[in-house]
Amino acid sequence: MNFDCLKTDNSARLSRLYLRNIIDLPAFMPVGTQGIVKALLPGMLNDIGYNLMLSNTYHLYLRPGVDVIEALGGLHKFGNFNGSILTDSGGFQVFSLSDLRKVTPEGVRFKSHIDGSYHFFTPEKVLDLQFRFKSDIAMVLDECPAYSLEKSFVDKSLNITLNWARRSALVEKPDTSAVFGIVQGGIFEDLRKKSALEIASMNFDGIAIGGLSVGESPQEMYDTVASVIQYLPKDKPRYAMGVGRPEDIVRLVGYGIDMFDCVMPTRNARNGYLFTDFGNINIKNAAYAKDESPIDEHCNCYTCKSFSRAFLRHLYKAKELSFYTLATIHNLTYYYNLMHLIQQAIMDNRFGEFSKSFLEKRRYGDS
Amino acid sequence: MNFDCLKTDNSARLSRLYLRNIIDLPAFMPVGTQGIVKALLPGMLNDIGYNLMLSNTYHLYLRPGVDVIEALGGLHKFGNFNGSILTDSGGFQVFSLSDLRKVTPEGVRFKSHIDGSYHFFTPEKVLDLQFRFKSDIAMVLDECPAYSLEKSFVDKSLNITLNWARRSALVEKPDTSAVFGIVQGGIFEDLRKKSALEIASMNFDGIAIGGLSVGESPQEMYDTVASVIQYLPKDKPRYAMGVGRPEDIVRLVGYGIDMFDCVMPTRNARNGYLFTDFGNINIKNAAYAKDESPIDEHCNCYTCKSFSRAFLRHLYKAKELSFYTLATIHNLTYYYNLMHLIQQAIMDNRFGEFSKSFLEKRRYGDS
Repeated sequence: MNFDCLKTDNSARLSRLYLRNIIDLPAFMPVGTQGIVKALLPGMLNDIGYNLMLSNTYHLYLRPGVDVIEALGGLHKFGNFNGSILTDSGGFQVFSLSDLRKVTPEGVRFKSHIDGSYHFFTPEKVLDLQFRFKSDIAMVLDECPAYSLEKSFVDKSLNITLNWARRSALVEKPDTSAVFGIVQGGIFEDLRKKSALEIASMNFDGIAIGGLSVGESPQEMYDTVASVIQYLPKDKPRYAMGVGRPEDIVRLVGYGIDMFDCVMPTRNARNGYLFTDFGNINIKNAAYAKDESPIDEHCNCYTCKSFSRAFLRHLYKAKELSFYTLATIHNLTYYYNLMHLIQQAIMDNRFGEFSKSFLEKRRYGDS
Repeated sequence: MNFDCLKTDNSARLSRLYLRNIIDLPAFMPVGTQGIVKALLPGMLNDIGYNLMLSNTYHLYLRPGVDVIEALGGLHKFGNFNGSILTDSGGFQVFSLSDLRKVTPEGVRFKSHIDGSYHFFTPEKVLDLQFRFKSDIAMVLDECPAYSLEKSFVDKSLNITLNWARRSALVEKPDTSAVFGIVQGGIFEDLRKKSALEIASMNFDGIAIGGLSVGESPQEMYDTVASVIQYLPKDKPRYAMGVGRPEDIVRLVGYGIDMFDCVMPTRNARNGYLFTDFGNINIKNAAYAKDESPIDEHCNCYTCKSFSRAFLRHLYKAKELSFYTLATIHNLTYYYNLMHLIQQAIMDNRFGEFSKSFLEKRRYGDS
């Protein structure tokens, strides 16, 4: 993996990641938990412009299992995705989906949310799984402490995460996979600093900031990122995991974050919430029953070029599966275009102005 | 509407229907109940080759309502479908979906399965609704008696249906809509004959045979069609409503049927049953867990050209929405190709041979 920073505009960075494809950063990664973005065919992702997707190790390990994916030639070939794939380590899902888990210095034992079977993840094992998936970017195993935890617990958790990171840094990796370390530490500035300095000192290809979007306020999130980013090396990509709302992305690009992922555009789409620059639209509103206009008349997506709000509302009310596809295409196009506008603004040295005007516009909408 | 019979091979007919598009017959119509085929985008239907779809008056009348569809320019424009649309009359759904209904000589009163509201359909009203939808083919209101009913009840029901048909034949229609009459009469040969002779004598553009696929055995269905078809005019298209399995379609083309519709390819797809010439595949079978081959290596559909059985099984098990799209594309391609092979066989005067060999092949498969 190579990383080139092409241009900065204050702290915002325009850069490139060389994986299986060239990825223009700042980039948003759609979430394809099971190896495919929900309700989309893989080619639709390419049609929008995406060539990097995130998939979930926890889900794919439990079903269909690494043996199946390996036998079918890896995740890209299995799902016929023409692009690069970042996989998370499974750590976050172990803590959010499994109803029984036990962390030891060695690793984490957990119960499958699918069939109740028991499994054990270690830092070495989750990297091996991701290498066998042929992930382009593998993430290290970490523990993501709950937002509500007291500092002493977060500190203890961080020590385990840092120990796991040290072990991860020793794992031999194939040439085709990059490995990213993860900064934790909750909302505690000194813990974040300690974590950032340690992770930055290890030989990872990129640095992620984890433990965001877990219940803290937007301002706490921004403050956490601001406090961490000063300790991160300039020559590695920086990834804010699980972030976020368009507003959050614009803010964090301003602090120097390069990569994002979030279920928001795809999950909101399936719930009828559609993104526009003038705020979000809730397609079930009666006001759209006979509305001939597209979701957003300035949008260039297939959905906006083909269908009225009235038809989309009809599909949503009738629970037609096509609605989920059409809404997902629109929301992911919105995010893609946003990243493109951000890149353009950094290129033109006017990111600050773009950011201000964007955050102002997004205040309106019906939801 | 124009209808040209180009060629016959014994009773099988190769013909053409001139609607908004030219429709090659024998044809299968995918079911797009709410104005769209479940899990497909409208362009995918065209990509497979379909240019005629069936939609349901009952559903569209209840939601989004004729006012909405009319305000948006009719059903084709509303759903952005580049092809022709046949709408059923709503009669069948009133009898199968509404939990409360009362038939009078005037029409049928029923309770919406969506919100419990009461509605009244008359022969004149359902045609008016379909004309306002801009349907290319509108169906007359009929009563479809249950398979289990005694002859005296079926006779009484038929008299109402015939009276409604006479009233329907008097309704003035727009130039752009054809109207088809419907033969009923259950499995009673004399009632079917009476119905066929009466419907054939009216000025309909085509003749449908209703009351099929309602619980009778395949042989009873074939016998019913055989007994009816001798009374039908040769210069009008003949449509077997709600039929059916690939085997049924091949059989009934042999009797002289030109048009078919059925939820089977689309509904079976969503349940994991995939059609092939060597029988149906149940994708959840463990045998496919690591199967690199496509559903059918001879199939030219997007799904078979892009994905393995192993990946499709994974999507099905994970309840990924994309599965429904991919499986529907395959099954509708199977039906489309079947109709194409049927047309070719009639053209080449070898439909009998085709039919025999097809019915033999379809005996195998895992479900």
